[in-house]
Amino acid sequence: MSRIAYVAGQYLPHRQAAVHIEDRGFQFADGVYEVISVVGGRLVDAERHLKRLKRSLGELRIPAPLGDAALGIVLHEVIRRNGVDTGIVYLQVTRGAAPREHAFPKAAKPTLVVTSRRSRPPDPRLGDDGIAVITIPDIRWQRCDIKSVALIANVLGKQQAREKGAYEAWQVDQVGQVTEGTSTNAWIVTCDGAVVTRPADFGILRGITRTVLLDVIAEQGLKFEERPFTMDEAYTAREAFITSATQFVTPVVRLDGRPVGNGAPGLIATALRRDFHDHAEIA
Amino acid sequence: MSRIAYVAGQYLPHRQAAVHIEDRGFQFADGVYEVISVVGGRLVDAERHLKRLKRSLGELRIPAPLGDAALGIVLHEVIRRNGVDTGIVYLQVTRGAAPREHAFPKAAKPTLVVTSRRSRPPDPRLGDDGIAVITIPDIRWQRCDIKSVALIANVLGKQQAREKGAYEAWQVDQVGQVTEGTSTNAWIVTCDGAVVTRPADFGILRGITRTVLLDVIAEQGLKFEERPFTMDEAYTAREAFITSATQFVTPVVRLDGRPVGNGAPGLIATALRRDFHDHAEIA
Repeated sequence: MSRIAYVAGQYLPHRQAAVHIEDRGFQFADGVYEVISVVGGRLVDAERHLKRLKRSLGELRIPAPLGDAALGIVLHEVIRRNGVDTGIVYLQVTRGAAPREHAFPKAAKPTLVVTSRRSRPPDPRLGDDGIAVITIPDIRWQRCDIKSVALIANVLGKQQAREKGAYEAWQVDQVGQVTEGTSTNAWIVTCDGAVVTRPADFGILRGITRTVLLDVIAEQGLKFEERPFTMDEAYTAREAFITSATQFVTPVVRLDGRPVGNGAPGLIATALRRDFHDHAEIA
Repeated sequence: MSRIAYVAGQYLPHRQAAVHIEDRGFQFADGVYEVISVVGGRLVDAERHLKRLKRSLGELRIPAPLGDAALGIVLHEVIRRNGVDTGIVYLQVTRGAAPREHAFPKAAKPTLVVTSRRSRPPDPRLGDDGIAVITIPDIRWQRCDIKSVALIANVLGKQQAREKGAYEAWQVDQVGQVTEGTSTNAWIVTCDGAVVTRPADFGILRGITRTVLLDVIAEQGLKFEERPFTMDEAYTAREAFITSATQFVTPVVRLDGRPVGNGAPGLIATALRRDFHDHAEIA
Protein backbone atom coordinates (compact mmCIF):
# COMPACT_ATOMS: atom_id res chain seq x y z
CA MET A 1 0.00 0.00 0.00
CA SER A 2 1.60 3.28 -1.08
CA ARG A 3 1.42 6.14 1.37
CA ILE A 4 -1.07 8.97 0.88
CA ALA A 5 -0.93 12.49 2.28
CA TYR A 6 -3.62 15.14 2.47
CA VAL A 7 -2.40 18.53 1.25
CA ALA A 8 -4.73 21.51 1.00
CA GLY A 9 -7.81 19.65 -0.19
CA GLN A 10 -6.23 16.75 -2.07
CA TYR A 11 -5.20 13.22 -1.23
CA LEU A 12 -1.84 12.75 -2.93
CA PRO A 13 0.77 10.02 -3.20
CA HIS A 14 3.25 10.77 -0.40
CA ARG A 15 6.11 11.17 -2.83
CA GLN A 16 4.32 13.96 -4.69
CA ALA A 17 2.96 15.72 -1.61
CA ALA A 18 4.38 19.22 -1.69
CA VAL A 19 3.74 22.79 -0.60
CA HIS A 20 4.63 25.95 -2.45
CA ILE A 21 8.08 27.44 -1.75
CA GLU A 22 6.32 30.60 -0.57
CA ASP A 23 4.22 28.72 1.93
CA ARG A 24 4.76 30.64 5.16
CA GLY A 25 5.39 27.37 6.96
CA PHE A 26 8.53 26.99 4.85
CA GLN A 27 9.72 30.62 4.85
CA PHE A 28 8.70 31.87 8.32
CA ALA A 29 7.83 28.83 10.51
CA ASP A 30 4.42 30.50 10.46
CA GLY A 31 2.40 27.44 11.38
CA VAL A 32 1.47 24.92 14.05
CA TYR A 33 1.15 21.16 14.28
CA GLU A 34 -0.09 18.20 16.28
CA VAL A 35 1.03 14.58 16.49
CA ILE A 36 -1.73 12.20 17.59
CA SER A 37 -1.26 8.53 18.41
CA VAL A 38 -3.35 5.97 16.55
CA VAL A 39 -4.32 2.78 18.37
CA GLY A 40 -6.54 0.19 16.71
CA GLY A 41 -7.03 2.60 13.81
CA ARG A 42 -8.47 5.21 16.18
CA LEU A 43 -7.16 8.54 17.43
CA VAL A 44 -5.95 8.80 21.01
CA ASP A 45 -7.20 11.88 22.87
CA ALA A 46 -8.29 13.52 19.62
CA GLU A 47 -10.55 16.03 21.32
CA ARG A 48 -7.75 17.39 23.50
CA HIS A 49 -5.34 17.58 20.54
CA LEU A 50 -7.84 19.46 18.39
CA LYS A 51 -8.63 21.82 21.23
CA ARG A 52 -4.93 22.58 21.63
CA LEU A 53 -4.59 23.02 17.85
CA LYS A 54 -7.36 25.62 17.98
CA ARG A 55 -5.61 27.43 20.78
CA SER A 56 -2.27 27.47 18.90
CA LEU A 57 -4.00 28.77 15.76
CA GLY A 58 -5.81 31.40 17.80
CA GLU A 59 -2.59 32.65 19.41
CA LEU A 60 -1.04 33.08 15.93
CA ARG A 61 -4.33 34.36 14.47
CA ILE A 62 -4.34 31.74 11.73
CA PRO A 63 -7.90 30.87 10.68
CA ALA A 64 -8.88 27.21 11.03
CA PRO A 65 -8.57 25.60 7.58
CA LEU A 66 -11.53 23.29 8.18
CA GLY A 67 -14.37 22.96 10.66
CA ASP A 68 -14.06 20.34 13.40
CA ALA A 69 -16.22 17.75 11.67
CA ALA A 70 -14.43 18.08 8.32
CA LEU A 71 -11.04 17.93 10.00
CA GLY A 72 -12.05 14.79 11.84
CA ILE A 73 -13.12 13.21 8.54
CA VAL A 74 -9.78 14.09 6.91
CA LEU A 75 -7.79 12.67 9.83
CA HIS A 76 -9.69 9.39 9.74
CA GLU A 77 -9.51 9.22 5.96
CA VAL A 78 -5.73 9.65 5.97
CA ILE A 79 -5.42 6.93 8.61
CA ARG A 80 -7.69 4.66 6.57
CA ARG A 81 -5.97 5.28 3.24
CA ASN A 82 -2.61 4.49 4.82
CA GLY A 83 -3.92 1.37 6.51
CA VAL A 84 -2.63 2.54 9.88
CA ASP A 85 -3.71 0.43 12.81
CA THR A 86 -0.98 1.44 15.26
CA GLY A 87 0.98 4.57 14.54
CA ILE A 88 0.59 8.31 14.42
CA VAL A 89 -1.20 10.98 12.47
CA TYR A 90 0.63 14.27 11.90
CA LEU A 91 -1.20 17.45 11.03
CA GLN A 92 0.21 20.85 10.25
CA VAL A 93 -1.54 24.13 9.55
CA THR A 94 0.30 27.16 8.18
CA ARG A 95 -0.84 30.67 7.34
CA GLY A 96 -0.65 29.67 3.67
CA ALA A 97 1.34 30.80 0.64
CA ALA A 98 1.90 34.47 -0.15
CA PRO A 99 4.63 36.73 -1.56
CA ARG A 100 7.35 36.90 1.13
CA GLU A 101 6.75 39.69 3.64
CA HIS A 102 6.92 39.30 7.43
CA ALA A 103 3.52 40.81 8.29
CA PHE A 104 0.37 38.72 7.78
CA PRO A 105 -0.66 38.55 4.13
CA LYS A 106 -4.08 39.93 3.33
CA ALA A 107 -5.29 37.07 1.18
CA ALA A 108 -3.54 33.84 2.10
CA LYS A 109 -5.56 30.68 2.62
CA PRO A 110 -4.28 28.44 5.44
CA THR A 111 -2.52 25.26 4.31
CA LEU A 112 -3.53 21.97 5.97
CA VAL A 113 -1.23 18.95 5.64
CA VAL A 114 -2.07 15.58 7.17
CA THR A 115 0.09 12.45 7.08
CA SER A 116 -0.12 9.14 8.88
CA ARG A 117 2.27 6.28 9.32
CA ARG A 118 2.45 2.97 11.07
CA SER A 119 4.81 2.64 13.97
CA ARG A 120 5.39 0.14 16.67
CA PRO A 121 3.57 0.77 19.91
CA PRO A 122 5.64 2.47 22.62
CA ASP A 123 8.86 0.47 22.77
CA PRO A 124 8.56 -1.87 25.79
CA ARG A 125 12.34 -1.78 26.25
CA LEU A 126 12.12 1.95 26.96
CA GLY A 127 9.76 1.13 29.80
CA ASP A 128 11.76 -1.85 31.06
CA ASP A 129 15.21 -0.30 30.82
CA GLY A 130 14.44 3.41 31.11
CA ILE A 131 16.22 6.12 29.17
CA ALA A 132 19.13 8.52 29.58
CA VAL A 133 18.56 12.27 29.55
CA ILE A 134 21.08 15.11 29.27
CA THR A 135 20.51 18.76 30.12
CA ILE A 136 21.03 21.79 27.90
CA PRO A 137 20.25 25.51 28.23
CA ASP A 138 16.73 26.38 27.05
CA ILE A 139 17.38 28.76 24.15
CA ARG A 140 13.91 28.61 22.62
CA TRP A 141 11.52 31.49 22.12
CA GLN A 142 9.30 32.58 24.99
CA ARG A 143 5.99 31.25 23.66
CA CYS A 144 6.59 27.52 23.84
CA ASP A 145 2.95 27.16 24.87
CA ILE A 146 2.17 27.61 21.16
CA LYS A 147 2.87 24.35 19.31
CA SER A 148 4.58 26.11 16.41
CA VAL A 149 6.84 24.54 13.80
CA ALA A 150 9.67 26.91 14.84
CA LEU A 151 11.49 23.84 16.17
CA ILE A 152 15.10 24.49 15.23
CA ALA A 153 16.20 24.79 18.89
CA ASN A 154 14.43 21.51 19.68
CA VAL A 155 16.16 19.89 16.70
CA LEU A 156 19.58 21.00 17.92
CA GLY A 157 18.78 19.82 21.44
CA LYS A 158 17.56 16.40 20.36
CA GLN A 159 20.64 15.99 18.19
CA GLN A 160 22.90 16.80 21.16
CA ALA A 161 21.09 14.11 23.14
CA ARG A 162 21.55 11.55 20.39
CA GLU A 163 25.24 12.31 20.11
CA LYS A 164 25.66 11.76 23.84
CA GLY A 165 23.82 8.45 23.68
CA ALA A 166 20.75 9.87 25.38
CA TYR A 167 17.10 9.71 24.36
CA GLU A 168 16.15 13.24 25.31
CA ALA A 169 17.55 16.60 26.43
CA TRP A 170 15.91 18.50 29.27
CA GLN A 171 16.05 22.23 28.73
CA VAL A 172 17.02 24.42 31.67
CA ASP A 173 15.94 28.05 31.93
CA GLN A 174 18.02 31.02 33.04
CA VAL A 175 17.25 30.49 36.73
CA GLY A 176 18.32 26.85 36.62
CA GLN A 177 14.86 25.30 36.44
CA VAL A 178 13.89 22.57 34.00
CA THR A 179 11.31 23.63 31.43
CA GLU A 180 10.75 20.46 29.38
CA GLY A 181 12.36 18.03 26.95
CA THR A 182 12.74 18.83 23.26
CA SER A 183 9.62 16.78 22.45
CA THR A 184 8.45 15.57 25.86
CA ASN A 185 7.41 16.93 29.27
CA ALA A 186 9.72 16.43 32.27
CA TRP A 187 8.77 14.97 35.67
CA ILE A 188 10.50 13.92 38.89
CA VAL A 189 9.43 12.09 42.02
CA THR A 190 11.03 13.61 45.11
CA CYS A 191 12.54 11.66 47.99
CA ASP A 192 9.33 12.10 49.94
CA GLY A 193 7.29 10.66 47.10
CA ALA A 194 5.82 13.79 45.53
CA VAL A 195 5.36 13.78 41.76
CA VAL A 196 6.56 17.17 40.43
CA THR A 197 6.16 18.83 37.04
CA ARG A 198 6.34 22.41 35.85
CA PRO A 199 3.10 24.40 35.48
CA ALA A 200 1.99 24.85 31.89
CA ASP A 201 2.95 28.52 31.53
CA PHE A 202 4.37 30.25 28.41
CA GLY A 203 7.61 28.28 28.90
CA ILE A 204 6.31 24.82 28.06
CA LEU A 205 3.80 23.08 25.91
CA ARG A 206 0.69 21.81 27.67
CA GLY A 207 1.32 18.19 26.72
CA ILE A 208 -1.81 16.11 26.21
CA THR A 209 -0.23 13.10 27.89
CA ARG A 210 0.85 15.45 30.69
CA THR A 211 -2.77 16.59 31.13
CA VAL A 212 -4.17 13.06 31.09
CA LEU A 213 -1.53 11.94 33.57
CA LEU A 214 -2.61 14.63 36.02
CA ASP A 215 -5.98 12.85 36.18
CA VAL A 216 -4.33 9.49 36.74
CA ILE A 217 -2.20 10.94 39.54
CA ALA A 218 -5.24 12.51 41.17
CA GLU A 219 -7.26 9.30 40.95
CA GLN A 220 -4.48 7.26 42.46
CA GLY A 221 -4.16 9.75 45.31
CA LEU A 222 -0.46 10.35 44.65
CA LYS A 223 1.17 13.37 46.22
CA PHE A 224 1.55 15.98 43.47
CA GLU A 225 3.24 19.37 43.20
CA GLU A 226 2.83 21.48 40.06
CA ARG A 227 5.92 23.70 40.30
CA PRO A 228 9.26 24.20 38.55
CA PHE A 229 12.14 22.04 39.76
CA THR A 230 15.90 22.57 39.51
CA MET A 231 18.49 20.16 38.19
CA ASP A 232 19.86 19.77 41.73
CA GLU A 233 16.47 18.46 42.74
CA ALA A 234 16.40 16.21 39.71
CA TYR A 235 19.86 14.76 40.48
CA THR A 236 18.71 13.79 43.96
CA ALA A 237 15.19 12.72 42.96
CA ARG A 238 13.97 9.22 43.71
CA GLU A 239 12.60 8.88 40.17
CA ALA A 240 12.33 10.81 36.94
CA PHE A 241 10.28 10.28 33.81
CA ILE A 242 9.08 11.90 30.61
CA THR A 243 5.72 12.00 28.89
CA SER A 244 4.78 12.37 25.24
CA ALA A 245 1.89 11.54 22.94
CA THR A 246 3.88 8.79 21.23
CA GLN A 247 5.84 7.20 24.10
CA PHE A 248 3.31 7.95 26.89
CA VAL A 249 5.20 7.58 30.24
CA THR A 250 8.87 6.60 30.02
CA PRO A 251 11.18 6.26 33.06
CA VAL A 252 14.46 8.21 33.12
CA VAL A 253 17.30 6.22 34.70
CA ARG A 254 20.27 8.47 33.95
CA LEU A 255 20.49 12.27 34.11
CA ASP A 256 23.68 13.82 32.74
CA GLY A 257 25.37 10.48 33.21
CA ARG A 258 24.36 10.08 36.88
CA PRO A 259 21.96 7.33 37.97
CA VAL A 260 18.49 8.49 39.02
CA GLY A 261 17.53 6.82 42.30
CA ASN A 262 19.00 3.31 42.16
CA GLY A 263 19.47 3.57 38.39
CA ALA A 264 16.45 1.41 37.53
CA PRO A 265 12.97 2.56 36.40
CA GLY A 266 11.07 3.90 39.39
CA LEU A 267 7.99 2.29 40.90
CA ILE A 268 5.72 5.26 40.36
CA ALA A 269 6.84 5.85 36.75
CA THR A 270 6.37 2.17 35.99
CA ALA A 271 2.90 2.13 37.52
CA LEU A 272 1.88 5.30 35.70
CA ARG A 273 3.13 3.87 32.42
CA ARG A 274 1.04 0.75 33.02
CA ASP A 275 -2.08 2.66 34.02
CA PHE A 276 -1.88 5.40 31.44
CA HIS A 277 -3.67 3.47 28.73
CA ASP A 278 -6.85 3.08 30.73
CA HIS A 279 -7.19 6.84 30.88
CA ALA A 280 -6.49 7.92 27.32
CA GLU A 281 -9.64 8.54 25.30
CA ILE A 282 -9.69 6.61 22.08
CA ALA A 283 -12.20 7.90 19.57
CA MET B 1 7.87 37.21 -18.59
CA SER B 2 6.64 34.52 -16.18
CA ARG B 3 8.55 34.10 -12.96
CA ILE B 4 11.03 31.25 -12.51
CA ALA B 5 12.32 29.73 -9.28
CA TYR B 6 15.26 27.43 -8.69
CA VAL B 7 14.33 24.46 -6.50
CA ALA B 8 16.81 21.69 -5.74
CA GLY B 9 18.47 21.57 -9.14
CA GLN B 10 15.63 22.68 -11.38
CA TYR B 11 14.43 25.97 -12.79
CA LEU B 12 10.64 25.85 -12.46
CA PRO B 13 7.72 28.15 -13.18
CA HIS B 14 7.12 30.01 -9.92
CA ARG B 15 3.59 28.69 -9.64
CA GLN B 16 4.81 25.09 -9.65
CA ALA B 17 7.81 25.64 -7.41
CA ALA B 18 7.30 23.40 -4.41
CA VAL B 19 9.11 21.48 -1.68
CA HIS B 20 8.11 18.18 -0.15
CA ILE B 21 5.83 18.31 2.89
CA GLU B 22 8.55 16.51 4.84
CA ASP B 23 11.15 19.09 3.97
CA ARG B 24 12.64 20.03 7.33
CA GLY B 25 12.29 23.69 6.45
CA PHE B 26 8.53 23.19 6.51
CA GLN B 27 8.28 20.87 9.52
CA PHE B 28 11.08 22.11 11.80
CA ALA B 29 12.23 25.56 10.58
CA ASP B 30 15.45 23.64 10.04
CA GLY B 31 16.99 26.00 7.50
CA VAL B 32 18.53 29.39 6.85
CA TYR B 33 18.13 32.14 4.29
CA GLU B 34 19.55 35.33 2.80
CA VAL B 35 17.94 38.27 1.01
CA ILE B 36 20.31 40.12 -1.32
CA SER B 37 19.56 43.37 -3.11
CA VAL B 38 19.91 43.49 -6.87
CA VAL B 39 20.94 46.76 -8.49
CA GLY B 40 21.48 47.01 -12.24
CA GLY B 41 21.03 43.25 -12.47
CA ARG B 42 23.92 42.70 -10.08
CA LEU B 43 24.11 41.46 -6.49
CA VAL B 44 24.84 43.95 -3.72
CA ASP B 45 27.45 42.75 -1.19
CA ALA B 46 27.15 39.17 -2.42
CA GLU B 47 30.41 38.07 -0.87
CA ARG B 48 29.35 39.18 2.60
CA HIS B 49 25.93 37.55 2.25
CA LEU B 50 27.39 34.25 1.10
CA LYS B 51 29.93 34.32 3.91
CA ARG B 52 27.13 34.83 6.42
CA LEU B 53 25.12 32.04 4.77
CA LYS B 54 28.07 29.69 5.28
CA ARG B 55 28.32 30.69 8.91
CA SER B 56 24.58 30.08 9.47
CA LEU B 57 24.81 26.68 7.77
CA GLY B 58 27.87 25.83 9.82
CA GLU B 59 26.17 26.69 13.10
CA LEU B 60 23.27 24.37 12.20
CA ARG B 61 25.65 21.79 10.68
CA ILE B 62 23.78 21.79 7.36
CA PRO B 63 26.12 20.95 4.47
CA ALA B 64 26.37 23.57 1.72
CA PRO B 65 24.11 22.44 -1.13
CA LEU B 66 26.44 23.87 -3.79
CA GLY B 67 29.97 25.18 -4.00
CA ASP B 68 30.49 28.95 -4.08
CA ALA B 69 30.95 29.16 -7.84
CA ALA B 70 27.90 27.04 -8.63
CA LEU B 71 25.78 28.98 -6.15
CA GLY B 72 26.87 32.24 -7.74
CA ILE B 73 25.86 30.92 -11.14
CA VAL B 74 22.42 29.89 -9.88
CA LEU B 75 21.83 33.28 -8.25
CA HIS B 76 22.73 35.15 -11.43
CA GLU B 77 20.72 32.74 -13.57
CA VAL B 78 17.60 33.23 -11.44
CA ILE B 79 18.06 37.00 -11.66
CA ARG B 80 18.51 36.76 -15.42
CA ARG B 81 15.59 34.42 -16.04
CA ASN B 82 13.32 36.74 -14.06
CA GLY B 83 14.60 39.82 -15.86
CA VAL B 84 15.36 41.54 -12.58
CA ASP B 85 17.25 44.80 -12.88
CA THR B 86 16.32 46.31 -9.51
CA GLY B 87 14.97 44.01 -6.86
CA ILE B 88 16.00 41.21 -4.58
CA VAL B 89 17.15 37.63 -4.73
CA TYR B 90 16.00 35.30 -1.94
CA LEU B 91 17.80 32.08 -1.17
CA GLN B 92 16.93 29.44 1.37
CA VAL B 93 18.76 26.28 2.35
CA THR B 94 17.16 23.60 4.51
CA ARG B 95 18.47 20.31 5.86
CA GLY B 96 16.33 18.57 3.24
CA ALA B 97 13.41 16.15 3.26
CA ALA B 98 13.32 13.14 5.56
CA PRO B 99 10.80 11.17 7.61
CA ARG B 100 9.81 13.41 10.53
CA GLU B 101 12.10 13.00 13.54
CA HIS B 102 13.70 15.87 15.47
CA ALA B 103 17.32 14.70 15.33
CA PHE B 104 19.33 15.18 12.14
CA PRO B 105 18.40 12.61 9.47
CA LYS B 106 21.22 10.37 8.30
CA ALA B 107 20.62 10.70 4.59
CA ALA B 108 18.91 13.98 3.78
CA LYS B 109 20.21 16.13 0.96
CA PRO B 110 20.00 19.89 1.64
CA THR B 111 17.30 21.74 -0.29
CA LEU B 112 18.28 24.98 -2.06
CA VAL B 113 15.54 27.37 -3.18
CA VAL B 114 16.29 30.62 -5.01
CA THR B 115 13.77 33.22 -6.14
CA SER B 116 14.13 36.74 -7.46
CA ARG B 117 11.70 39.54 -8.00
CA ARG B 118 11.72 43.09 -9.16
CA SER B 119 11.01 45.79 -6.64
CA ARG B 120 11.28 49.50 -6.53
CA PRO B 121 14.52 50.90 -5.19
CA PRO B 122 14.40 51.94 -1.52
CA ASP B 123 11.31 54.11 -1.24
CA PRO B 124 12.52 57.75 -1.27
CA ARG B 125 9.57 58.79 0.87
CA LEU B 126 10.87 56.59 3.68
CA GLY B 127 14.06 58.61 3.57
CA ASP B 128 12.36 61.98 3.22
CA ASP B 129 9.63 61.43 5.80
CA GLY B 130 11.20 58.84 8.09
CA ILE B 131 9.32 55.99 9.68
CA ALA B 132 7.53 55.18 12.94
CA VAL B 133 8.80 52.37 15.19
CA ILE B 134 7.12 50.71 18.15
CA THR B 135 8.78 48.59 20.83
CA ILE B 136 7.88 45.04 21.88
CA PRO B 137 9.49 42.48 24.19
CA ASP B 138 12.10 40.32 22.44
CA ILE B 139 10.64 36.82 22.74
CA ARG B 140 12.84 35.16 20.11
CA TRP B 141 15.25 32.30 20.63
CA GLN B 142 18.73 32.99 21.90
CA ARG B 143 20.62 32.34 18.66
CA CYS B 144 19.41 35.23 16.52
CA ASP B 145 22.94 35.43 15.11
CA ILE B 146 21.90 32.44 12.97
CA LYS B 147 19.75 33.64 10.08
CA SER B 148 17.26 30.80 10.47
CA VAL B 149 13.76 30.61 9.04
CA ALA B 150 12.34 30.23 12.56
CA LEU B 151 10.80 33.67 12.12
CA ILE B 152 7.41 33.35 13.78
CA ALA B 153 8.30 35.83 16.55
CA ASN B 154 9.50 38.31 13.92
CA VAL B 155 6.25 37.81 11.99
CA LEU B 156 4.15 38.56 15.07
CA GLY B 157 6.29 41.61 15.86
CA LYS B 158 6.09 43.05 12.35
CA GLN B 159 2.34 42.50 12.34
CA GLN B 160 2.01 44.41 15.65
CA ALA B 161 3.96 47.28 14.07
CA ARG B 162 1.69 47.33 11.02
CA GLU B 163 -1.43 47.36 13.15
CA LYS B 164 -0.10 50.36 15.06
CA GLY B 165 0.68 52.22 11.85
CA ALA B 166 4.44 51.71 12.29
CA TYR B 167 7.02 50.38 9.86
CA GLU B 168 9.02 48.33 12.32
CA ALA B 169 9.06 47.00 15.88
CA TRP B 170 12.22 47.23 17.96
CA GLN B 171 12.62 44.25 20.24
CA VAL B 172 13.67 44.90 23.84
CA ASP B 173 15.47 42.27 25.92
CA GLN B 174 14.84 41.35 29.54
CA VAL B 175 17.16 44.06 30.88
CA GLY B 176 15.43 46.80 28.87
CA GLN B 177 17.98 47.05 26.06
CA VAL B 178 17.07 47.13 22.39
CA THR B 179 18.24 44.10 20.43
CA GLU B 180 17.08 44.84 16.86
CA GLY B 181 14.03 45.26 14.65
CA THR B 182 12.09 42.28 13.30
CA SER B 183 13.94 42.52 9.96
CA THR B 184 16.32 45.45 10.48
CA ASN B 185 19.13 46.56 12.80
CA ALA B 186 18.50 49.43 15.26
CA TRP B 187 20.63 52.56 15.72
CA ILE B 188 20.49 55.83 17.64
CA VAL B 189 22.53 59.03 17.63
CA THR B 190 22.98 60.36 21.16
CA CYS B 191 22.68 64.02 22.18
CA ASP B 192 26.46 64.35 22.02
CA GLY B 193 26.50 63.03 18.46
CA ALA B 194 27.65 59.42 19.00
CA VAL B 195 26.23 56.80 16.67
CA VAL B 196 25.27 53.75 18.79
CA THR B 197 24.33 50.21 17.82
CA ARG B 198 24.36 46.91 19.68
CA PRO B 199 27.34 44.58 19.25
CA ALA B 200 26.65 41.58 17.01
CA ASP B 201 26.43 38.94 19.75
CA PHE B 202 24.08 35.92 19.86
CA GLY B 203 21.14 38.32 20.37
CA ILE B 204 21.13 39.95 16.95
CA LEU B 205 21.86 39.21 13.35
CA ARG B 206 25.08 40.63 11.98
CA GLY B 207 23.33 42.68 9.30
CA ILE B 208 25.33 43.16 6.11
CA THR B 209 24.17 46.75 5.77
CA ARG B 210 25.10 47.22 9.43
CA THR B 211 28.61 45.94 8.71
CA VAL B 212 29.06 48.11 5.64
CA LEU B 213 27.77 51.13 7.52
CA LEU B 214 30.43 50.65 10.20
CA ASP B 215 33.00 51.30 7.46
CA VAL B 216 31.17 54.41 6.30
CA ILE B 217 31.00 55.72 9.86
CA ALA B 218 34.71 55.10 10.38
CA GLU B 219 35.64 56.77 7.09
CA GLN B 220 33.58 59.83 7.91
CA GLY B 221 35.19 60.05 11.33
CA LEU B 222 31.86 59.96 13.15
CA LYS B 223 31.88 59.23 16.86
CA PHE B 224 30.75 55.61 17.27
CA GLU B 225 29.90 53.37 20.23
CA GLU B 226 29.15 49.68 19.69
CA ARG B 227 27.12 48.91 22.81
CA PRO B 228 23.55 48.07 23.80
CA PHE B 229 21.22 51.02 24.40
CA THR B 230 18.01 51.27 26.43
CA MET B 231 14.67 52.62 25.30
CA ASP B 232 15.13 55.57 27.69
CA GLU B 233 18.23 56.46 25.71
CA ALA B 234 16.35 56.02 22.48
CA TYR B 235 13.48 58.26 23.60
CA THR B 236 15.94 61.07 24.34
CA ALA B 237 18.22 60.42 21.36
CA ARG B 238 18.89 63.15 18.81
CA GLU B 239 18.28 60.73 15.95
CA ALA B 240 17.36 57.12 15.33
CA PHE B 241 17.49 54.95 12.24
CA ILE B 242 17.31 51.39 10.96
CA THR B 243 19.36 49.45 8.44
CA SER B 244 18.47 46.52 6.21
CA ALA B 245 19.65 44.95 2.97
CA THR B 246 16.56 46.15 1.13
CA GLN B 247 15.95 49.63 2.59
CA PHE B 248 19.59 50.48 3.44
CA VAL B 249 19.53 53.38 5.97
CA THR B 250 16.10 54.69 6.96
CA PRO B 251 15.51 57.47 9.54
CA VAL B 252 13.16 56.81 12.47
CA VAL B 253 11.09 59.89 13.38
CA ARG B 254 8.66 58.39 15.91
CA LEU B 255 9.35 55.86 18.66
CA ASP B 256 6.31 54.49 20.48
CA GLY B 257 4.39 57.56 19.29
CA ARG B 258 6.93 60.11 20.60
CA PRO B 259 8.92 62.28 18.20
CA VAL B 260 12.61 61.44 17.89
CA GLY B 261 14.68 64.65 18.13
CA ASN B 262 12.64 67.33 16.40
CA GLY B 263 10.46 64.71 14.69
CA ALA B 264 12.17 65.01 11.29
CA PRO B 265 14.83 62.73 9.76
CA GLY B 266 18.18 63.42 11.43
CA LEU B 267 21.18 64.91 9.69
CA ILE B 268 23.48 61.97 10.30
CA ALA B 269 20.91 59.36 9.21
CA THR B 270 20.18 61.34 6.08
CA ALA B 271 23.86 61.69 5.24
CA LEU B 272 24.52 57.98 5.87
CA ARG B 273 21.57 57.05 3.67
CA ARG B 274 22.96 59.23 0.90
CA ASP B 275 26.51 57.90 1.24
CA PHE B 276 25.67 54.25 1.76
CA HIS B 277 25.49 53.38 -1.92
CA ASP B 278 29.07 54.37 -2.58
CA HIS B 279 30.25 51.74 -0.13
CA ALA B 280 28.16 48.72 -1.06
CA GLU B 281 29.99 46.26 -3.26
CA ILE B 282 28.09 45.43 -6.40
CA ALA B 283 29.26 42.25 -8.13
